[in-house]
Order: sequence, then structure tokens, then C-alpha cells
Amino acid sequence: MTSRPSAASSSDPGHQVTGVAIGRDEAERLAVVLKALSDPTRLQLLAMIEASPNGEACVNDLTEPLELSQPTISHHLKILVSAGILARDKRGLWSWYTIVPDQLQTLRALLPGPTFLRNER
Amino acid sequence: MTSRPSAASSSDPGHQVTGVAIGRDEAERLAVVLKALSDPTRLQLLAMIEASPNGEACVNDLTEPLELSQPTISHHLKILVSAGILARDKRGLWSWYTIVPDQLQTLRALLPGPTFLRNER
Repeated sequence: MTSRPSAASSSDPGHQVTGVAIGRDEAERLAVVLKALSDPTRLQLLAMIEASPNGEACVNDLTEPLELSQPTISHHLKILVSAGILARDKRGLWSWYTIVPDQLQTLRALLPGPTFLRNER
Repeated sequence: MTSRPSAASSSDPGHQVTGVAIGRDEAERLAVVLKALSDPTRLQLLAMIEASPNGEACVNDLTEPLELSQPTISHHLKILVSAGILARDKRGLWSWYTIVPDQLQTLRALLPGPTFLRNER
């Protein structure tokens, strides 16, 4: 691997990648949000909350459609709140969950592929 | 938890969540893509490939800026290829990697928050 054909050489200036396009801190912050999202149940919970009439739901609204226990749903909601994707509002005995737009907007802006994303706007 | 105040009741028709807004299959497929993305090094690799002059890079272009070994970079690139986020084109001795727009566009369309995403357009 010490020699390579010049036609495909990565030392060709036209191909050279010169730096790190996203800093480590930003990449780590973004990875935390993506990891919180990367679970099918959590994606279904978010879609259900977003689709609910007032854009909010409490744990009892979410258990039956997904056929999961309240502790399981609560566990997933907690992860989404910790990642800043959901906001929790305690009213009386119940906590209501809404999607925080900021975190997902930031994610969308930072997702690789800014060129084609820009072209779409 | 058997009684709750009617003002905050989830059985209020205005608050009722009636179904599953994303099917399980779709959620599982999306979760696989998100999981592949949820690593800071992989996010940095994608950003570097996207920012490179021709939108493509080979493993040697990527090792030095990130100060990681070639096997480590290759491991991360393989995960991104498996998830359909990167395409690999072997030319001569080297493999060149480009971002596949489709997978990220689908991800973006399916990400929770369609209401505010629609409002932005």
C-alpha cells in the first residue's frame, strides 16, 4: 500500500480533504441527540406526540397504541427529555410531553449533506 | 394513579392520541440509519466527505485530519456503507466514498416534527 496509481491518488489536490468540517464538540453533541432518536419505540412515541391534536401527550395516551407498559414508555420518554428532544410539563398528577423544535431543527441543519439540503430550499 | 383531575385528563377527547403515527417497520428502518449516524467520528467523516472538493474521499484522505488509524476509519466507513448512507466506489487500489443523498433525505422527511418542518418551507 505504499504506491498507488496517480489517477486515483488521494494526494491529487482536487481530491485533498484538508480539515475537519465539524468540530469534535459539535459532533459529540449531535451524536447524543441522534442516539436518543435511534430507537424505533422512541421514534413512534415522537410521531404520536407530534400527531396528537394539541401536539402533547401524557404517558397514558401512549401505552395502549404501542402495547407497551407504562414503565417502558416512561423510560423512553425520560431519554428523549434528557436529550432535549421532548419537554415535560407537570400539570396536576400528570406530565405532558411536547416536542422541542429547536433540537431537531439544529440536528437537521447539522446533518451531513448541506449541499443538497441547501438546493432543496 | 387510578383517579386524575379532569382538567389534565388524557381521556379528554381533545388530547386523545388515537393511533400509531409511524408503523413499526418504518420506525425500525429509520432507527438503523439514525444509529449509524449517532457516532461523533462518523459524523465528522460524513462532514469531511461532503466538504471535500468532489464530494468524495478515500480512507487515506480521512485518517490524518481525525488523527485516527486507517482500520478505525475503515470500520466507521463500513458501518455508514451498510446503512446506505455512503456509497463505495472501488477504482484501482482505492475505494472512494460519497454520500448517498436518498437515505438522508428520507431520514429528514421522516424525522418527527413534520408540522414545524412544513412551516419552514
